Amino acid sequence: MLIVKKFGGSSVANADRVRHVAGLIAEDVEKGHRVIAVLSAQGDTTDELIAKAHEISANPSKRELDMLISTGEQQSVALMSMALHEMGYKAISLNAFQVGMHTTRVYGNSRLKRIDSERINVELDRGNVVLVTGFQGVNRYEDYTTLGRGGSDTTAVAIAAAMHADRCQIFTDVEGVYTADPRIVKNARKLKEISYDEMLELASQGAKVLHNRSVEMAKRYNVVLEVLSSMTRAEGTLVKEETQVERLLITGIAVDKNVARVSLIGLADVPGRAFRVFDLLSRNNINVDIILQSIGREGTKDISFTISRDDMEATRTLLEANKEQLGAQEIQLSDQFAKISIVGAGMISNPGVASKMFEALYNAGVNIHMISTSEIKISVLIAQRNVELAMEAIHDRFNMAGSI
Amino acid sequence: MLIVKKFGGSSVANADRVRHVAGLIAEDVEKGHRVIAVLSAQGDTTDELIAKAHEISANPSKRELDMLISTGEQQSVALMSMALHEMGYKAISLNAFQVGMHTTRVYGNSRLKRIDSERINVELDRGNVVLVTGFQGVNRYEDYTTLGRGGSDTTAVAIAAAMHADRCQIFTDVEGVYTADPRIVKNARKLKEISYDEMLELASQGAKVLHNRSVEMAKRYNVVLEVLSSMTRAEGTLVKEETQVERLLITGIAVDKNVARVSLIGLADVPGRAFRVFDLLSRNNINVDIILQSIGREGTKDISFTISRDDMEATRTLLEANKEQLGAQEIQLSDQFAKISIVGAGMISNPGVASKMFEALYNAGVNIHMISTSEIKISVLIAQRNVELAMEAIHDRFNMAGSI
Repeated sequence: MLIVKKFGGSSVANADRVRHVAGLIAEDVEKGHRVIAVLSAQGDTTDELIAKAHEISANPSKRELDMLISTGEQQSVALMSMALHEMGYKAISLNAFQVGMHTTRVYGNSRLKRIDSERINVELDRGNVVLVTGFQGVNRYEDYTTLGRGGSDTTAVAIAAAMHADRCQIFTDVEGVYTADPRIVKNARKLKEISYDEMLELASQGAKVLHNRSVEMAKRYNVVLEVLSSMTRAEGTLVKEETQVERLLITGIAVDKNVARVSLIGLADVPGRAFRVFDLLSRNNINVDIILQSIGREGTKDISFTISRDDMEATRTLLEANKEQLGAQEIQLSDQFAKISIVGAGMISNPGVASKMFEALYNAGVNIHMISTSEIKISVLIAQRNVELAMEAIHDRFNMAGSI
Repeated sequence: MLIVKKFGGSSVANADRVRHVAGLIAEDVEKGHRVIAVLSAQGDTTDELIAKAHEISANPSKRELDMLISTGEQQSVALMSMALHEMGYKAISLNAFQVGMHTTRVYGNSRLKRIDSERINVELDRGNVVLVTGFQGVNRYEDYTTLGRGGSDTTAVAIAAAMHADRCQIFTDVEGVYTADPRIVKNARKLKEISYDEMLELASQGAKVLHNRSVEMAKRYNVVLEVLSSMTRAEGTLVKEETQVERLLITGIAVDKNVARVSLIGLADVPGRAFRVFDLLSRNNINVDIILQSIGREGTKDISFTISRDDMEATRTLLEANKEQLGAQEIQLSDQFAKISIVGAGMISNPGVASKMFEALYNAGVNIHMISTSEIKISVLIAQRNVELAMEAIHDRFNMAGSI
């Protein structure tokens, strides 16, 4: 069996952790499997390198930043190879150049285009465990690129797809995907499996387990993912194509606190106003999530929408500068909100899910400020102080701690 | 003018030093020169990475060690590029893969074979300062290699040769090449120039300014080197083909404390004994420097020789294990010696130099234990406690502080 295993930065943070992970890899080798392990940079290495760059430049060139931070993963794979040698196993480390990890041109947030399988195959055939740098690639100019957040997950999935691996295991600091964040909802339940689409909705709604891009890629190439912990022996969660029989009404709840609500009050109620607002934001690379338009007083209307909290100050500056032109009487911004989402493939055929959710929140005394829905997801904006109350209420209402 | 500048680890140890070096590079750019800068890893980075490897393995694979430590230079060049950008200059960093820095296969102590000039030329033509990782290369397997001690000097010289640079400046923490170590001999004089051969003898006799391999390469490709300080504006020393008119009797004195003396006492005075000893050492990769054979008592002879102090324990073990077979009555090892060498192209035509040196030592009360000579060098082994006394005496005797 060919297994791709991915370990994040905390899993390889120091010599002891490296040895521990080497042990996990060795177990597979002992079983006769061929193993490719994708590693992130050790612990806080990437952040430390970024801090070094910022000592020199407030806004360093992205090309040079990628050149700088891509060294972190290279150190991890070299050290892991040494640890495996020390235990008596054959191993070799490869970086993005050596593998041939081809990406788009853009720096800092590149996308994988193609992975050469030749070198990896040669090394596997020589009996080596192959240790590959996550998060990084090489573009057409032969420059290092990095893949952005969750990049190492994407590397692992892409390698699993390119090499036709039998398994792709993503080791994290949690034991799998849960119905809700176990730190918030006490009786949250670990899922045995979840579909790609559900995982995508959960990921984009704030669940930190897997990054969207890696799930999208897994879906496209039908790579079955296994999310599990590097610290325990517990069975993890499989992320795979949905199987109808196992379809859950609600798979999980996610919370996203990185939201801000923006309200434009008293816009003239004439066509094109909304377009102007969102065109302005889009041209400034500010993504809008939930949108609510309401009729205001005296022939005016109000528009509310949510953005990432990181964009709050930029949005404030932008809207204030264009207040006149947009014809808004007042602009309000608030970071006192959070977005709660429930996700489940079973929703499609169960129209009562939304009202059940709203009822649970009503009974818990939680006010709903905005609503957004997709085929398999319902999101509501609520006051941030109500997050725990709301999650518990929803989790109970849908009996998510119970059996499938 | 195309200028290659090389800066060592201490010259780029932190953000302030990086900015300072960026300033030196910028001065050349302002004068209209094209600049390639070769950088070492920052400060103690390489040692820290080696320590990390040793946390995992007492004897890490050299291939993986090179993979690990080659990240240090990559960080330096990326940071330097950012510093130049910050000052408003165009710059780009390149590592061994990107340049095409081809080496022999061996890890840890590889030799440069060929440097592709294409990428560097393209970047220079775009108006970039090109920042190249020193010390590292890529071998035929597309694996990182490192060049061993002084490797970044070699990289700089090789690039200067490949690119037909007009100048190759090696920045160090001293202002140039001196007649003797200024920390030992107070009135040591900085040389305006020195020939490749003299520099080679000085380097191999313990002068730390330039590494042998870089000087050999400079000689082979006739690259004029300029050794100067990154901290002061003082004129440095030129290392170049010798020009007869400027030939000095003695160019410099070097001291090497990394020596140990080995004596085999009471060997049977029959043919082949010496061969057996040195064959044994050679097969165990122990290099022998000065050799002295003397007649001992009662038909026996004694053999003394010097080795690197690093090899002392290995040599002791080896000789003790073979004592019987070698037929030695006694084996003595001592690290209480030092080797003092005087170097000068002018020696060839001045047979009186050796006796002048011995006279100076005699007058200073310094006993000579062994002697070795080449065309342009005389080395003597003396007690280590006499090093300063001896250097002062020789320096004075040859009037080395005086005018040329």
